[in-house]
Amino acid sequence: MALSEFALIERYFRTCGVSRADVKLGVGDDAALLTVAPGCTLVAATDTLVAGVHFPPHSPPASVGHRALAVNLSDLAAMGARAAWALLALTLPAAEESWLGEFSAGFCALARAHGVALVGGDTTRGPLCVSVTLLGAVPSGKALTRSGGHPGDVLFVSGTPGDAAAGLALEQGRLQAPDSARSWLRERFLLPTPRMALGERLLAYASACIDVSDGLLGDLGRLASASRAGAVLDYDELPLSQPLVEVVGEERARELALTGGDDYELCFAVPPHNVTRLLAELPPQRWGYTRIGALRAAAGVDIVRDGTVMEFSHSGYDHFA
Amino acid sequence: MALSEFALIERYFRTCGVSRADVKLGVGDDAALLTVAPGCTLVAATDTLVAGVHFPPHSPPASVGHRALAVNLSDLAAMGARAAWALLALTLPAAEESWLGEFSAGFCALARAHGVALVGGDTTRGPLCVSVTLLGAVPSGKALTRSGGHPGDVLFVSGTPGDAAAGLALEQGRLQAPDSARSWLRERFLLPTPRMALGERLLAYASACIDVSDGLLGDLGRLASASRAGAVLDYDELPLSQPLVEVVGEERARELALTGGDDYELCFAVPPHNVTRLLAELPPQRWGYTRIGALRAAAGVDIVRDGTVMEFSHSGYDHFA
Repeated sequence: MALSEFALIERYFRTCGVSRADVKLGVGDDAALLTVAPGCTLVAATDTLVAGVHFPPHSPPASVGHRALAVNLSDLAAMGARAAWALLALTLPAAEESWLGEFSAGFCALARAHGVALVGGDTTRGPLCVSVTLLGAVPSGKALTRSGGHPGDVLFVSGTPGDAAAGLALEQGRLQAPDSARSWLRERFLLPTPRMALGERLLAYASACIDVSDGLLGDLGRLASASRAGAVLDYDELPLSQPLVEVVGEERARELALTGGDDYELCFAVPPHNVTRLLAELPPQRWGYTRIGALRAAAGVDIVRDGTVMEFSHSGYDHFA
Repeated sequence: MALSEFALIERYFRTCGVSRADVKLGVGDDAALLTVAPGCTLVAATDTLVAGVHFPPHSPPASVGHRALAVNLSDLAAMGARAAWALLALTLPAAEESWLGEFSAGFCALARAHGVALVGGDTTRGPLCVSVTLLGAVPSGKALTRSGGHPGDVLFVSGTPGDAAAGLALEQGRLQAPDSARSWLRERFLLPTPRMALGERLLAYASACIDVSDGLLGDLGRLASASRAGAVLDYDELPLSQPLVEVVGEERARELALTGGDDYELCFAVPPHNVTRLLAELPPQRWGYTRIGALRAAAGVDIVRDGTVMEFSHSGYDHFA
C-alpha cells in the first residue's frame, strides 16, 4: 500500500525512541532544535548501511533498523560519549508498510534502550539505503580518541570478535551450523550490542579507544597509527566465543576474530598505572572485555604466538579496495 | 582508478570547507567533537539526494555536491540558524576520481562560502546516494519555526520560485529555451542559493518560516497548518523571473512558481506591526523577497486572482504519492 512521505513519518517515526526535555523541537519542522548541556562537548557520527553491501538484501527489517542505529551508537561508545539524538535518512524502493513497521520497531527499540530521541530525518524513494546521524555529548575535554595511546599502554577488546562475520556467513548460506551455535552467531550479526556503558566508564581509565567495525587487526592498526605507535597482539589471548570455535574450529575462529567485520566491539588502550584499578573497578568477567596485547613504539601491528611473530595479509574491510 | 576509502577521504574531504576553532576533532576518528557556543541552541537537519530521483543520473558532479549541501543549508536558513558543521554520507558505485574531484569541489566551495566545516562522514559502495547532516546554531529561544504564524501575518517569499523546476525540465530535455534563459534556469536548478543571510536577519521580524523545496503552494500549506491557520495567496503578486516567463509564458510560469520543486527559497510570515520595519531595514529589492499574501484564520490555502478564488490540484512533490 502506498503511504505518503508525511503519513509515513507520522505513523512510524513521530514518537520514536524516548522523549527528552532537551529536544526543543523534533521531527516535523525544517530542522530540529536541541539543547547541549553546559560543560559538555557535542559528539557527532554518521554511518550508512546499503542493501547488498552492509547486509544481505533480504535481511529481517528489524535487524536493518537495529544495525543502522547500533553502528552509530558504537562510534559514540568509542568516544566515551552518551547518545542523545538521532537523524534518520531512509531511502526505500517503496513505502511497504510491513517492512517499515518492522524496521522502525528495531530502530526505535534500540533508541529507547539507550535514551535516544529521533529528532529528524528524510525519507526518499530509491535503492534501499539507511544513513543515520547520531548526536550525543561527552564532558568537555574528556572524550576518548584514537590518538591518545602511548607505547606500553595495555590493549583490551570487548566481547568476542569474529562472531558477527560468522553470523553473516550463516545468513548468506556460506556456512552451516547446529541450531544453538547458529542462533548465537546470527544474532551477533543481526543485532549487535553497542558497548555504551563500557565506553562511558572507560573515560576514567583509557588513553585511547576505537570501535571495531572493520576487523580488530585493521582497527587496532588505526588506533596505533593515530597514537603514533605500533602494537603487539597476543594470538592466544584473543577472546573467542564457544559457538564460533564449535562452528569453524579454533584456528579459523582466531582468524575471524582478527579480520572479520561488523562486531561493533571496543578496542581500547589503558596506561599501565590504570590497569589494576580498571580490573578491580570494572571486573572483566562482568564487563566482558579481555586483555589482548600492548602498544609499542615501533610502527605496525605484530601478532605474536608462542613468542613468534605471525604473518597476516588481510587487515579489515575496505569499501573501495 | 580504485581508491581506498581512507585515501578517498584523505584526498577529497580531509580539509573541506573552513577551519573552525569550535571543531575539537574533525574527520578521522570515530566521531567528531564540537563545541556549541553558550546561549545557543543546536540546530540539526538531514537531507538525501538520490540519483534519478532528486537529480538526473548524469548531472554535473559539482552540482550534486553543491545541492547536497544547499538543501540542508536552506533548512537551517528557514530556522534563522547559522550553519557550522556538516557530516557527509556518500554512497557511490565506484570511487571514480574525476567524479569525486568535481563533487567535492562543489560541496566544499559552498561549505567555505557559508563558514561550514566538514567534520565527519561515511563513504560506502552502492547506488549513488548522498545524505548530508548539517549542524548549526541559533540564539536560544529565538529560532524561527513553521508554527509561529498568526492570522493576519503578511506572507513573503524570497527569489523567483518555479525557475528550478524549469531548469530541471531543461536538464531532462523536456523543455527547450534560448541560451541566455537556459543558462539562468539551469543554474537555478543545478546551483541553488540557500538564503542564509536573509534567514538569520528574519529572526528580528518573522513569526514563522519554511524552506520552499517541494513547491510554494504545498510548503506554504505546511506553514499555515503548523500555525493552525490558513492562507490567501495573491496569484498576480507571485514573483516570476523574466527568463521563466520568456520560456514557458506567464500562465505556466505562475503555475510552476506555485507547484515546482527544488527552489530552496524561504516563505515567511511577518506580523503586521513588523512589516514597515522589515521593508525599511531589509529593502525587498536588495534582499530579494516579495509580498505574496497573508495568513488567515480559516484552514487551507486559497489562491486569489482578481478577487476570485482559483482551483488548484497539485500541491507539491511527495516522494511516495
